[in-house]
Amino acid sequence: MSMTCDPTRPLDASTVEQLLGVYRHLHAHPELSMQEHATADFIAAELDSFGVENFRCGGTGVVGILREGEGPVVAFRADTDGLPIAEDTGLEYASTATGTLPDGTEVPVMHGCGHDTHVTALLTAARLLDADRSAWSGTVVLIFQPGEETAAGARAMVDDGLWDRAPRPAVVLGQHVMPQRAGTISISHGTAMAMADALRVVVRGRQSHGSQPQQSIDPIVLGAAMVTRLQTIVSRELDPMSPAVVTVGTFHAGLKENIIPDQAEFTLNIRTLTPEVRAQVLAAVERIVQAEATASGAEPPLIEALYDFPENYNQPAAAERVTTALEHALGGENVRRSGPLMGSEDFGHLGAAIGVPTVYWMFGGFEGETDLPINHSPFFGPVPEPTLTTATRAAVASLLAWVGRESR
Amino acid sequence: MSMTCDPTRPLDASTVEQLLGVYRHLHAHPELSMQEHATADFIAAELDSFGVENFRCGGTGVVGILREGEGPVVAFRADTDGLPIAEDTGLEYASTATGTLPDGTEVPVMHGCGHDTHVTALLTAARLLDADRSAWSGTVVLIFQPGEETAAGARAMVDDGLWDRAPRPAVVLGQHVMPQRAGTISISHGTAMAMADALRVVVRGRQSHGSQPQQSIDPIVLGAAMVTRLQTIVSRELDPMSPAVVTVGTFHAGLKENIIPDQAEFTLNIRTLTPEVRAQVLAAVERIVQAEATASGAEPPLIEALYDFPENYNQPAAAERVTTALEHALGGENVRRSGPLMGSEDFGHLGAAIGVPTVYWMFGGFEGETDLPINHSPFFGPVPEPTLTTATRAAVASLLAWVGRESR
Amino acid sequence: MSMTCDPTRPLDASTVEQLLGVYRHLHAHPELSMQEHATADFIAAELDSFGVENFRCGGTGVVGILREGEGPVVAFRADTDGLPIAEDTGLEYASTATGTLPDGTEVPVMHGCGHDTHVTALLTAARLLDADRSAWSGTVVLIFQPGEETAAGARAMVDDGLWDRAPRPAVVLGQHVMPQRAGTISISHGTAMAMADALRVVVRGRQSHGSQPQQSIDPIVLGAAMVTRLQTIVSRELDPMSPAVVTVGTFHAGLKENIIPDQAEFTLNIRTLTPEVRAQVLAAVERIVQAEATASGAEPPLIEALYDFPENYNQPAAAERVTTALEHALGGENVRRSGPLMGSEDFGHLGAAIGVPTVYWMFGGFEGETDLPINHSPFFGPVPEPTLTTATRAAVASLLAWVGRESR
Amino acid sequence: MSMTCDPTRPLDASTVEQLLGVYRHLHAHPELSMQEHATADFIAAELDSFGVENFRCGGTGVVGILREGEGPVVAFRADTDGLPIAEDTGLEYASTATGTLPDGTEVPVMHGCGHDTHVTALLTAARLLDADRSAWSGTVVLIFQPGEETAAGARAMVDDGLWDRAPRPAVVLGQHVMPQRAGTISISHGTAMAMADALRVVVRGRQSHGSQPQQSIDPIVLGAAMVTRLQTIVSRELDPMSPAVVTVGTFHAGLKENIIPDQAEFTLNIRTLTPEVRAQVLAAVERIVQAEATASGAEPPLIEALYDFPENYNQPAAAERVTTALEHALGGENVRRSGPLMGSEDFGHLGAAIGVPTVYWMFGGFEGETDLPINHSPFFGPVPEPTLTTATRAAVASLLAWVGRESR
Repeated sequence: MSMTCDPTRPLDASTVEQLLGVYRHLHAHPELSMQEHATADFIAAELDSFGVENFRCGGTGVVGILREGEGPVVAFRADTDGLPIAEDTGLEYASTATGTLPDGTEVPVMHGCGHDTHVTALLTAARLLDADRSAWSGTVVLIFQPGEETAAGARAMVDDGLWDRAPRPAVVLGQHVMPQRAGTISISHGTAMAMADALRVVVRGRQSHGSQPQQSIDPIVLGAAMVTRLQTIVSRELDPMSPAVVTVGTFHAGLKENIIPDQAEFTLNIRTLTPEVRAQVLAAVERIVQAEATASGAEPPLIEALYDFPENYNQPAAAERVTTALEHALGGENVRRSGPLMGSEDFGHLGAAIGVPTVYWMFGGFEGETDLPINHSPFFGPVPEPTLTTATRAAVASLLAWVGRESR
Repeated sequence: MSMTCDPTRPLDASTVEQLLGVYRHLHAHPELSMQEHATADFIAAELDSFGVENFRCGGTGVVGILREGEGPVVAFRADTDGLPIAEDTGLEYASTATGTLPDGTEVPVMHGCGHDTHVTALLTAARLLDADRSAWSGTVVLIFQPGEETAAGARAMVDDGLWDRAPRPAVVLGQHVMPQRAGTISISHGTAMAMADALRVVVRGRQSHGSQPQQSIDPIVLGAAMVTRLQTIVSRELDPMSPAVVTVGTFHAGLKENIIPDQAEFTLNIRTLTPEVRAQVLAAVERIVQAEATASGAEPPLIEALYDFPENYNQPAAAERVTTALEHALGGENVRRSGPLMGSEDFGHLGAAIGVPTVYWMFGGFEGETDLPINHSPFFGPVPEPTLTTATRAAVASLLAWVGRESR
Repeated sequence: MSMTCDPTRPLDASTVEQLLGVYRHLHAHPELSMQEHATADFIAAELDSFGVENFRCGGTGVVGILREGEGPVVAFRADTDGLPIAEDTGLEYASTATGTLPDGTEVPVMHGCGHDTHVTALLTAARLLDADRSAWSGTVVLIFQPGEETAAGARAMVDDGLWDRAPRPAVVLGQHVMPQRAGTISISHGTAMAMADALRVVVRGRQSHGSQPQQSIDPIVLGAAMVTRLQTIVSRELDPMSPAVVTVGTFHAGLKENIIPDQAEFTLNIRTLTPEVRAQVLAAVERIVQAEATASGAEPPLIEALYDFPENYNQPAAAERVTTALEHALGGENVRRSGPLMGSEDFGHLGAAIGVPTVYWMFGGFEGETDLPINHSPFFGPVPEPTLTTATRAAVASLLAWVGRESR
Repeated sequence: MSMTCDPTRPLDASTVEQLLGVYRHLHAHPELSMQEHATADFIAAELDSFGVENFRCGGTGVVGILREGEGPVVAFRADTDGLPIAEDTGLEYASTATGTLPDGTEVPVMHGCGHDTHVTALLTAARLLDADRSAWSGTVVLIFQPGEETAAGARAMVDDGLWDRAPRPAVVLGQHVMPQRAGTISISHGTAMAMADALRVVVRGRQSHGSQPQQSIDPIVLGAAMVTRLQTIVSRELDPMSPAVVTVGTFHAGLKENIIPDQAEFTLNIRTLTPEVRAQVLAAVERIVQAEATASGAEPPLIEALYDFPENYNQPAAAERVTTALEHALGGENVRRSGPLMGSEDFGHLGAAIGVPTVYWMFGGFEGETDLPINHSPFFGPVPEPTLTTATRAAVASLLAWVGRESR
């Protein structure tokens, strides 16, 4: 039989062909977070097609379990959701899908963060492991997680009994496609990604006709003062050596140019690498927003936490084990040790919920070195190859680092 | 016969009853600017009901013509449109209407600026003049103008041949309900209301993921800088004795808190009293917006003029004539000479288009002196009486100042 | 005898020559506020030279009293102080004087606000009245007031018993040279000039090395936020029809570019026309400054009132009397009724302290209509003629409006 | 003989006593940058006292040369200048000195950055090496550098022929006292300290009386906008992983609260770790400052580079050699490998000027772990012991790493 799960060797042609078909289908049919119904059906059908037991978890999540006798349990997670972005890659299999946001807005949808590559690689890795039982023993838990973009999915799966329904693993692994050279991996030993907090601020002013500012408390001028002042958290309050980001991603106020509205609303996305800096930034946001409202004589704004992404920390011993396996499989020249990224993930919650270490790494998806499209861009279209076979081999290699017969 | 057009006397009970019915109907059925189809039908039907010739002009505008032999021609204008505001007056005849904005948004609609009182008063004045031909001779042109709120209606009527289709008047008169005591009039001799300009600014940044500000040009931070800097036009650049307002009425940017958007859009409403100050403010807005974009390394913003409200100037001699007539009709204690208002109107265009003077005044619509709801408020519900009979008598009195047999 | 105090006629040549000598001497020897020692000596010597009784009052103030039998008492005030400005007029008699500010700084001094013209005109008017006793009866109180620029002098004179030591007048008159055409007068009936308040704000931060902002509370960034936010008082909080100015005239912080200082200090100058608007602005400044400090997590700033200039209100009946006299003396074409000015004066205190009306007007000091130097400019050099004879005749005419034999 | 230069052993009592005397004298007699005349005399007298040849270089710099036969040449630098800070340590030997800044201002002077500890340690190390010739051979160049705080001294010594007059070394070493535990060392392998750039910005507005903002271009409002906008360089333009600081350390404008001044002046201190980020920040400062001036309609500001501190880079091989020596001498538990500091130094120039590697490390000067006074604080008073003997032993150990007989 031609299929193998030896990650040091290229995939055979028929596996590659099968993998590309899966990828193109997924790319063309993205779904919004926690609405990945067709995606879940597709994944379950794929798992069924080679006989892997599976069940739904956390709504649109899918868990598959590969069992092969005694041995360690190891979990691998791929996230499944798309984004409300109009794809502009010009790819033949580009998405023309639309979806409906929770507020009822109809939006275009795109796999703008490459989660389709994650699903494709994990499905293919499962197919390879299933086809070559001689190479390993133990249990592999395949976690197809919905709603990563909204930090809802990992919690939803854990809250829906993930670790009661699937065996508890020794480690949870995961990976993400990034704007770096296809064929390469980068991995941090320590913090892998930033924590993220999202806040919604409702600035409460007082409405008036545009010609009578004296009757108003202008929430747009007040909101602009808040946005401006928030810049000083990073520029003046934090240790320059403590990376952090405070982004105001949306700002909405007013219906008509000649009416001063009664409120403005903006949302914040905050990235920090340590719990101490996180607490410092959140306190500063609260302090600034409330004081600026006082400066305008306005009522206290409403500040609502929308979600928070947990720590994504690569336990050093487990990270070392993964790194060694990846270097062996892909060649040391293709595996780079890196520092943390400012991006965020709810991946860490899958391990933290049961006190199990996690390891997370990045794989490249592009040719060239410069002007690469970044994640969440309408132009984010990874080259299928060698992106997907590299991600597949990385998944197999890292799983075998725990369940491989040779790894004992 | 009980009907009279003697403006020094109260209206008879049946006229008041008829007037209140018209008013309640109009108040309950507001329509958005340039969409006043049912309102136009209603007005035309009213004019038809007592045999006044009339025609449509400028889409949803209606022009009625009362002819009575030789004599001067005088025009009187009432504007007809409502506003996209959810009425919160609690009135029995409050509006529950909705409408569709040009961008497709469904919105509640309300007579939040009291144009229903203007229409009611002019219809009633026409009815009175029609019923008492002995009191006057000449021609009265009744202009029911759509789209005042968007500065579109006066231009639309003129462009649609208003002054080719109706006789050219010696003066154009008009009035507006305001938050002052019902039964009183205030009138400026000179500038009556501010010019207004509306601009739309599209701030062009560069999109990035919220965790990677270094890849972005943040249009929200840039827009906030613009809003903040625009405050200095009024605070630092203008003569403190030159009243002006620069309001940012809307600001919209971003779809998701973790994506720095590629643009922000805001709209401005600018009020000035002289062409010189207007030119100074518009130049300063342009200068600041462009320079702030440069400060961010952004592309030049797009600045689009949405509309401009013309001067609304009461020619002193004509204003004197109106004032004298109003004092005679309503009592000197109820007529106050005032300065200009910061509000704006496209009324002036009806006269300026043919080089004819205009006179415009305010009538009160409320009881009490303080905490009155302002125009465009969801609570703007004038008391019907004595608001409406005062406005009707003011219309009759001012028209008779030109066509009254006694005024010769 | 050639001297006359008929203000309808030009001054004779020898009076003009004498007046120009006085003016050039005063212009060349300006002194700082409340340090006008030589100026007081000069004025007293002039008064002594034609036998007018006089005494010092309020330190460097001088009061002269002209008595001529029975009749009304009327007072006229000229202010005497110069400014810490380096004169750049290029005039032959330009000042090269220096002075010492209260903080010990040595500065150049200049009659940059034209008080030398005020003194010259009042001395000459006194000389004319003294020389022509037939024209009037009653008492004229000549007030040569120090320290107008610092709002200290009027209070100092009143506190030093001005109105106990001089007879109480029916009215206090005063005038000021302005950048308008020499030979003309403008006068407001009602508010003549703005109230002014000066505040000092000490922003308290926390010092740190420039490379360690996280250890600091940066008072410069905080102060900049305050200055920026203060703009919104005029732009958003006040009725556009209520003229007001909020100027930050000084801002000082830091000794070294690489040390974040522990405090910043700035001063404000505030102009308002009514006590209500004044109270509103002062409260807004306090609110904004305190809240911005809170936004930075800083201690409350110290806000200190440095001085306040009182209302300068022309009582309408008295203003009418002055206007009529000036029109008669100088020709109606040279006297213009104006609105209030945003400048400030402590003149009003001289009347308000004893409940006596005041009248204050402006006289022109320049040729041409445009690009005139403004008061407090280094280029402020009025043309001596017809500036000084006009001011002298205006003083005589207005005084005679009370004490002139013909005015009874 | 009791004196030894074995850095693994404590100093003997008489050396400690001598060292403390030197330290207390230096601490009590600080001098401003490039004015270290008495300090230079004191250092030269010390060197003379045990017969070390020495010469002046770069004005107030002193170079001593210890020669002992054949062998490597190694240089060690101590900086000598104090700061314009009023000492508030309460120490018995606290400074009461004063000095005169280049602009003529008399200021208090303090060894607020601990350069006195640097000088003391290097003098004592030289004394030990001189007394124990058996331990080493080669040449040690002792560089007592003036003017570190102003980035003037290293350049001044190089420009004055330092490396023509002294033998060229294989490495230049240096060390600095920091707020960490006395007895410990921290050392970076790679970038040691930030580059620093100081800029002066002259904002050019237009003067006016405070009541007439419309005649002005307000440089304080403009400067505040610049300060506020500069915050966005760090918060939005830089990679969050690229530490940088943009500090506005001084801001000065205006003489009088009621005059809008014609200019404002502020200074910037900029810290960056790589030449690329440095270039990015300098370009952004220029872009923002110029564009904000344009936004005000002002003339282009003047931007002047005051000084720049060069890279301070620890060549890894040389740093490894130093680290090994320090670990051996002081115990591995007292030597920590650290990342770069945001502080800056002109030390790097001494090596870069002749293409020779440099190594620079920090030694602790305080007891306890928290609330330590930071450099340039009025409370910066290191505990003499074990601070000074640790620094002395570190100097000896690192020098012997090149010239020690055992190190061959």
